[in-house]
Amino acid sequence: MAAPSSPKVAIVMGSQSDWDTMRCAADVLEELKVESDVRIVSAHRTPDRMYDFAKGAAEAGFEVIIAGAGGAAHLPGMIAALTHVPVLGVPVQSKALSGQDSLLSIVQMPAGVPVGTLAIGQAGATNAGLLAAAILANHDAALSQRLQDWRAARSAAVTERPVD
Amino acid sequence: MAAPSSPKVAIVMGSQSDWDTMRCAADVLEELKVESDVRIVSAHRTPDRMYDFAKGAAEAGFEVIIAGAGGAAHLPGMIAALTHVPVLGVPVQSKALSGQDSLLSIVQMPAGVPVGTLAIGQAGATNAGLLAAAILANHDAALSQRLQDWRAARSAAVTERPVD
Amino acid sequence: MAAPSSPKVAIVMGSQSDWDTMRCAADVLEELKVESDVRIVSAHRTPDRMYDFAKGAAEAGFEVIIAGAGGAAHLPGMIAALTHVPVLGVPVQSKALSGQDSLLSIVQMPAGVPVGTLAIGQAGATNAGLLAAAILANHDAALSQRLQDWRAARSAAVTERPVD
Amino acid sequence: MAAPSSPKVAIVMGSQSDWDTMRCAADVLEELKVESDVRIVSAHRTPDRMYDFAKGAAEAGFEVIIAGAGGAAHLPGMIAALTHVPVLGVPVQSKALSGQDSLLSIVQMPAGVPVGTLAIGQAGATNAGLLAAAILANHDAALSQRLQDWRAARSAAVTERPVD
Amino acid sequence: MAAPSSPKVAIVMGSQSDWDTMRCAADVLEELKVESDVRIVSAHRTPDRMYDFAKGAAEAGFEVIIAGAGGAAHLPGMIAALTHVPVLGVPVQSKALSGQDSLLSIVQMPAGVPVGTLAIGQAGATNAGLLAAAILANHDAALSQRLQDWRAARSAAVTERPVD
Amino acid sequence: MAAPSSPKVAIVMGSQSDWDTMRCAADVLEELKVESDVRIVSAHRTPDRMYDFAKGAAEAGFEVIIAGAGGAAHLPGMIAALTHVPVLGVPVQSKALSGQDSLLSIVQMPAGVPVGTLAIGQAGATNAGLLAAAILANHDAALSQRLQDWRAARSAAVTERPVD
Amino acid sequence: MAAPSSPKVAIVMGSQSDWDTMRCAADVLEELKVESDVRIVSAHRTPDRMYDFAKGAAEAGFEVIIAGAGGAAHLPGMIAALTHVPVLGVPVQSKALSGQDSLLSIVQMPAGVPVGTLAIGQAGATNAGLLAAAILANHDAALSQRLQDWRAARSAAVTERPVD
Amino acid sequence: MAAPSSPKVAIVMGSQSDWDTMRCAADVLEELKVESDVRIVSAHRTPDRMYDFAKGAAEAGFEVIIAGAGGAAHLPGMIAALTHVPVLGVPVQSKALSGQDSLLSIVQMPAGVPVGTLAIGQAGATNAGLLAAAILANHDAALSQRLQDWRAARSAAVTERPVD
Repeated sequence: MAAPSSPKVAIVMGSQSDWDTMRCAADVLEELKVESDVRIVSAHRTPDRMYDFAKGAAEAGFEVIIAGAGGAAHLPGMIAALTHVPVLGVPVQSKALSGQDSLLSIVQMPAGVPVGTLAIGQAGATNAGLLAAAILANHDAALSQRLQDWRAARSAAVTERPVD
Repeated sequence: MAAPSSPKVAIVMGSQSDWDTMRCAADVLEELKVESDVRIVSAHRTPDRMYDFAKGAAEAGFEVIIAGAGGAAHLPGMIAALTHVPVLGVPVQSKALSGQDSLLSIVQMPAGVPVGTLAIGQAGATNAGLLAAAILANHDAALSQRLQDWRAARSAAVTERPVD
Repeated sequence: MAAPSSPKVAIVMGSQSDWDTMRCAADVLEELKVESDVRIVSAHRTPDRMYDFAKGAAEAGFEVIIAGAGGAAHLPGMIAALTHVPVLGVPVQSKALSGQDSLLSIVQMPAGVPVGTLAIGQAGATNAGLLAAAILANHDAALSQRLQDWRAARSAAVTERPVD
Repeated sequence: MAAPSSPKVAIVMGSQSDWDTMRCAADVLEELKVESDVRIVSAHRTPDRMYDFAKGAAEAGFEVIIAGAGGAAHLPGMIAALTHVPVLGVPVQSKALSGQDSLLSIVQMPAGVPVGTLAIGQAGATNAGLLAAAILANHDAALSQRLQDWRAARSAAVTERPVD
Repeated sequence: MAAPSSPKVAIVMGSQSDWDTMRCAADVLEELKVESDVRIVSAHRTPDRMYDFAKGAAEAGFEVIIAGAGGAAHLPGMIAALTHVPVLGVPVQSKALSGQDSLLSIVQMPAGVPVGTLAIGQAGATNAGLLAAAILANHDAALSQRLQDWRAARSAAVTERPVD
Repeated sequence: MAAPSSPKVAIVMGSQSDWDTMRCAADVLEELKVESDVRIVSAHRTPDRMYDFAKGAAEAGFEVIIAGAGGAAHLPGMIAALTHVPVLGVPVQSKALSGQDSLLSIVQMPAGVPVGTLAIGQAGATNAGLLAAAILANHDAALSQRLQDWRAARSAAVTERPVD
Repeated sequence: MAAPSSPKVAIVMGSQSDWDTMRCAADVLEELKVESDVRIVSAHRTPDRMYDFAKGAAEAGFEVIIAGAGGAAHLPGMIAALTHVPVLGVPVQSKALSGQDSLLSIVQMPAGVPVGTLAIGQAGATNAGLLAAAILANHDAALSQRLQDWRAARSAAVTERPVD
Repeated sequence: MAAPSSPKVAIVMGSQSDWDTMRCAADVLEELKVESDVRIVSAHRTPDRMYDFAKGAAEAGFEVIIAGAGGAAHLPGMIAALTHVPVLGVPVQSKALSGQDSLLSIVQMPAGVPVGTLAIGQAGATNAGLLAAAILANHDAALSQRLQDWRAARSAAVTERPVD
């Protein structure tokens, strides 16, 4: 079992260049006071690191893994193949195809190996963080309250009329 | 709080015709001995029912909601807008556009309202069931074991060579 | 019944950022001396506001509702689910997918809940305003004349030859 | 002005083969006791007929024109260019591209000439009929009631649970 | 019959903004000493002008019509419906969909009304000019020679090695 | 120079399986009493035959070449690269991608080497035949009359009303 | 080093259902008298088997690996990440998206980890076999001759004219 | 037979403008100390040069040909039709369609004529170089070692954590 204080959410990404997208997941989790462990794990360049990370994820105490990648984005699906910890996937916007390749590579997983996929880009990363928080909140009443407050504040911030 | 025996997973779908897809979610949950509450809730034809269902979901004790819909598939996203319970979305394969519309309508949610989206069609529904189980398994060691066994059995069933 | 002077056209949009697109609807209606009521109503962030707005739309005297949204654009379809007032939808151009997601999320509504969808972006917003005016003009001869004059002026402005 | 009894809705389509789709518009209007005038008007094969029809549409008393076509579907947009009567467009599902060509050819109209576009295929045709009815219902309380009843009946028909 | 000196090629486009693309057709024709008549003819904003132009095209002595338009690009197909003079279509690159809408709206014509479609954007416009010249060259030996020279010069200009 | 009686239109296709599509070009030309020379010329399997055919096309007296191919459809473009005779391209509907690959491979030619592209499939083949006839008709008054009659007959065949 | 008689080509696929496609690779290799080792290796269901296979591929004497998969097709790319043996990828045609997901998941690999991707479906599998043979033929004159004969025979089989 | 010192890899591209992409192939080969012969060979503007190059490729001692092109990218496939030397294709990112046309034109080759296709743009060019090196490395132990070192260095360069 992981130590009580170890983070329950891992945020992994295929390369440094994905950080601009994936930091949105880290940021919203921080807002919600949910610790996360952020690291670069490339399915293609560091397959052994990925293997070790994923195989050890349950043991490390992670309850949700957020994985972001672009193009032929294999990271989320491969992690999901290597652990039974729930995996959320974030398609990073790619250069030529604007993330359509990332999206299909992540979401079209075969039966048996699920990846809960969010929207392309920063919105998707933010939402991966929120969904991870919602999953944890099922067993953490204080977090559930913070999440509900976050949502309520966000709703309250919607103005009645557009401003020029 | 929900009664101890009430199901923690809701499976909702936009119409009877989605059942052929969504039953895969119910089936795999049943295999894993996870109870689910299955119902038809149409965002477009029964918006009031959807409002009531989603607003009462937390109170009813649901810890995961699986929502499937096709075409302009608004059901998963609208439920996610109305509850902080985690929502998983299944794009049902549509007639003209083969589920490309369903997929984009479900996955491309704006920051703030996540839907963890699975693959188009039956594979996606099965995976929604598995992901729901994985989420519950974080706090249910017996289920976690059943899930790992299910995965192991499935891996073991992959033959070494293709058969003509 | 609404007061005689209350606007017959509502223009709603999912967020402040949609205003850059949706103001084209407001602008063309103003050119045609058709009053409109402009507001932000987010399907995802303010579902209750949306619910109240849509359920009260007929009573408020609206004869056409123009709704714009981007990405998984649920606003037009959900309003159409909640009122029998005619709804026109404007797909706002999204970042990654250039509005292809917005278009499909708005136009691919199931049988029973129509949204009359216009083009992606500002052209679509202008046209939503024009279509709303055309609908009102069926019972407003002066508006019909203004609309025909607007169209005639626009045709007359097409030069014979391109200018370098 | 058209005689009181002349239909206020025209349903036009590019060819006989579109009738299988477009009859859904006629059928739902008939259910709602709204008369419609159904005819074949091909933008490409009978452009003169199209010109005459569209130019005379206002005079003939039509308040809504429903136009369906497939492939390079020019009929709805060309009618909209030739009359200020509101035009609703139905993309008929095409053979090779499943109606993606029809949809884009109809919906992507330039600013100034709106076509309110519905979904690809029969659902879109049904919805064009319903939207036409909703437009007329603004000034026809009895029709408004029938439309609301139709919607209510359809909502009531949604069963609570899926049936195997 | 047209006067001997009247241009045999017409270049028409839907709006001033298309000129940036369509000038490539005019330019290459000028290089080949083929006169062309350039004008703005909008299917949507000036349908009567289009009608008159197309119906009079054969009489005016045009042997090829090059028509460029963007979005729901109806101009090439409508001209082809109104004249038996050969029509070449140029899809102008549109804002949201990069000319995919323009391309499908032009090329997917139904059997009976052909439009010979070129590539999206300036390359397509240049090629429309070249194809028009090739058509005329069948009965103009001097032009045929100029066209072959143009092609030969262009081939000769391809360097052996790329330059940094 | 070709003998007076040699066909002015060549119809070539990449394989026997394209004949089901391309026969529509041959058929409509036969209806219009335009002789055509039909042959299989594969860019990929018989590149030498293609080179010989294309390089000799002008000499052989062809005034239009209709080339059909599917998938990575290189035949029309390569012929256009090898002759200054006008080339019309027909995208044959492919299995996996329904002709979207064929269409883009044919139409997206670079500046300098035009292929006048028709619709995907049989409609495109028919239209290639019609466009070839229209090109020849510029210098063949009798053919021009037959073409106009063909078009008029086709327009006259459009019934006023759809038949159940 | 592998024994002299061990196959130099491995054909791997994600599941039994891919065999209908991938057997085309095996068949054409057999025609060319190239031995191949065919096995099922699922990236998602048997990741350990995949790791072992890929890590041992060079040692086992494989000079080319052909990998086929459908949907979120991670097998070719992951093998390429785990070995420096050249990998060829075959996108298997998927149900909902016709192999567009398979294609993008295989071909859009990031810089550093190449997969030489063939066409979607059986044509791609046949071509993977041929490309593997061509690679081996660089150092096997007899195979080179057989490959050239195969190509010549195929070219010779192209008939001059289509047959009804 | 080619001289011992002649390069075994040819890099060809359709135009000077492709060099910005294709230089990545040359660069990575240079890093790996693999000589390459770089030239511009346009399928469309210099078909004879292409014909000569491809027909002479085996004789010239090339063991791999890397061909890059954009739009209707016929170069890789046509070279593959004219030689049995293995061909790798690089889809250059096109202006309007971002390389989707290039990709489909290159990858969707019919059975019999393979092109091993890499990703759109610079990543694909780099990978074509790497795949060429991997093919040569089967019979060049020193190169194999350099390639493995290159891969190892690249893996080692992946940092553990993202940097702000």
